[in-house]
Amino acid sequence: MKSPFVSRRDFLKTSTLAVAGLPLLGALAAEPKRKIGFALCGLGNLSTHQIAPALQQSQFCRLAGIVTGTPAKAARWKAQYNIPDRSIYNYDTMAQMADNPDIDVVYVVTPNALHAESAIKAAKAGKHVLCEKPMEVSVEKCQQMIDACREAKRQLAIGYRLHFEPNNLECVRLAREKVFGGLKSIKAGFGFAIGDPKQWRLNKALSGGGPMMDVGIYALQAMRYLSGQEPVSVSAIATTTDKVKFRDIEETLAWQMKFPGGILASGNTTYGFDGNNFFTAQAERGSFGLEPAYNYHGIQGTRSDGKTIELPDMNQFAAEMDDFAQCILENRPTRVPGEEGLRDVKIMMAIYEAARTGQAVNL
Amino acid sequence: MKSPFVSRRDFLKTSTLAVAGLPLLGALAAEPKRKIGFALCGLGNLSTHQIAPALQQSQFCRLAGIVTGTPAKAARWKAQYNIPDRSIYNYDTMAQMADNPDIDVVYVVTPNALHAESAIKAAKAGKHVLCEKPMEVSVEKCQQMIDACREAKRQLAIGYRLHFEPNNLECVRLAREKVFGGLKSIKAGFGFAIGDPKQWRLNKALSGGGPMMDVGIYALQAMRYLSGQEPVSVSAIATTTDKVKFRDIEETLAWQMKFPGGILASGNTTYGFDGNNFFTAQAERGSFGLEPAYNYHGIQGTRSDGKTIELPDMNQFAAEMDDFAQCILENRPTRVPGEEGLRDVKIMMAIYEAARTGQAVNL
Repeated sequence: MKSPFVSRRDFLKTSTLAVAGLPLLGALAAEPKRKIGFALCGLGNLSTHQIAPALQQSQFCRLAGIVTGTPAKAARWKAQYNIPDRSIYNYDTMAQMADNPDIDVVYVVTPNALHAESAIKAAKAGKHVLCEKPMEVSVEKCQQMIDACREAKRQLAIGYRLHFEPNNLECVRLAREKVFGGLKSIKAGFGFAIGDPKQWRLNKALSGGGPMMDVGIYALQAMRYLSGQEPVSVSAIATTTDKVKFRDIEETLAWQMKFPGGILASGNTTYGFDGNNFFTAQAERGSFGLEPAYNYHGIQGTRSDGKTIELPDMNQFAAEMDDFAQCILENRPTRVPGEEGLRDVKIMMAIYEAARTGQAVNL
Repeated sequence: MKSPFVSRRDFLKTSTLAVAGLPLLGALAAEPKRKIGFALCGLGNLSTHQIAPALQQSQFCRLAGIVTGTPAKAARWKAQYNIPDRSIYNYDTMAQMADNPDIDVVYVVTPNALHAESAIKAAKAGKHVLCEKPMEVSVEKCQQMIDACREAKRQLAIGYRLHFEPNNLECVRLAREKVFGGLKSIKAGFGFAIGDPKQWRLNKALSGGGPMMDVGIYALQAMRYLSGQEPVSVSAIATTTDKVKFRDIEETLAWQMKFPGGILASGNTTYGFDGNNFFTAQAERGSFGLEPAYNYHGIQGTRSDGKTIELPDMNQFAAEMDDFAQCILENRPTRVPGEEGLRDVKIMMAIYEAARTGQAVNL
């Protein structure tokens, strides 16, 4: 399935939903009889500080269960969220979810290289899967996840929260409707100075790569959803100034992509320094962009005609989960399916290959 | 000779001169007995609207002669600037300059691919040479210019006006003095929507290349003077959306360069759209940059500590010519010698090769 985000017809449909539809639904829709039950799989920072609170703000979802390898976390979450014992799992007991009707979706929030394992277990237990980005660390593992969910007849979505973020969607509209003419060039970057040198993100066995996989993927996504196209070739250079901290992964990476119509995209990502969080789209008669572009809150931007882009903040995780819940309730496809996650992983692998070999890679 | 702009010792010397010294000299120095006589070679837009007016504002220079292939221009300039007949040349009579003591310097402002021809004629006539950027369209022709000036024992400078621009120099200071720590990454871009489809800039035989040679060179320069290093490898992608207008040269080009210490630089240039005129340097503890960075006037910037960079405007061409005049009067080397121009041409040829082959090029 092609991502609705990048097809014009589907974009109009889904963006109407996402920009105007969600508040509208909030106002008009009756509370659903049954909220979709989410089990959070992996209880790190993102689950703790973003996703669990977002579930409380969601309309169609509820926190129904957890999967963790750490008993102390299980006890803490059980107390905080009143989770019944039978909905508390570890990575070895996930098959038992098959007997638990409270859980509809497993939201996989583990380190990247463990996504497939949990996603496939969840699918085999008959659960829908929402999986954080990047989908996995190889094209093969992404494909295994897609296959497992297809076999189980369950939906698979990737946690691309910005597909539900109004300012990003407004920029997609400016691009698609050619408000400033056809796009010529896209620049996008996302990076930050990473802290704790012992975290899994710096360990390639768990992360599959460095800032490209973790945050560069947002800039890559922006290039794809702004252009509405798939890149035909990539080139890249990676560098490291701190060879101790970044012995395993790239510190800073810049890449370029050529799109079929001639649009040229330049991206940057880093774990070395703060300050990159933007995209700029340059078109025939003007430009527009966001900065910050990828944050949880405060996304805003400018247009070359002097107008600002500053649509109201919302909880992106709640929107993402509510949309997936509605897809399940209404039996319609998600706009961020596994195929969309696989596309990014495939491109990122090409970017790494280009950086490693110094050779542009055709896609 | 190494460019003084990129050596710390020489930078401190020359930046003191350029930032504080010129106004100081203006206040203290007596008018020189003899102003250095400049002959403008090539009377296009740049000579007409920038360089000739700048000569009127300069302190150590005067417009002493012209070289043009167009008799109507000769008549117009003669009348406007009161140029004696014996100081009016065409491209075939430049050898006769040897007998004209009024002319000390020939400022070559022709299309790029004609620079070497006029520069070598000027040197052979015993004149110093100031040559617009890009120096020439091949490494070989650059070397011929250097050799000709060396043989004639005359100075050769390239018209890198931003080496005399206070805001750019301030950014070089921030980088060299590590005010925000060591540099990690540099982003720079310069481009514009080119007009008249018949101009020589779109004709590769005269231009040697597209926006990279014309304006991308400023972003390349910024990367080099901010890092104070020479790149070790480049990769690049070029694209074209208008295959009629840009049948001969690239429309848009993005390139990346790796520096020895791991600094990663990403550049963009285009003739396809307006809006790119910036650089950003990201360092360990903050960032700084200019936007616009390369204009004749109004250059300004910001620092991540909230301070602005907004040193007063000045006539960059006058500063560039005054500095060259002083170098001649005081018999000291220019900070923008032919070797500096050749370095850029060498890197740009590698950038074009990388874009053509899809293969990173080591320098």
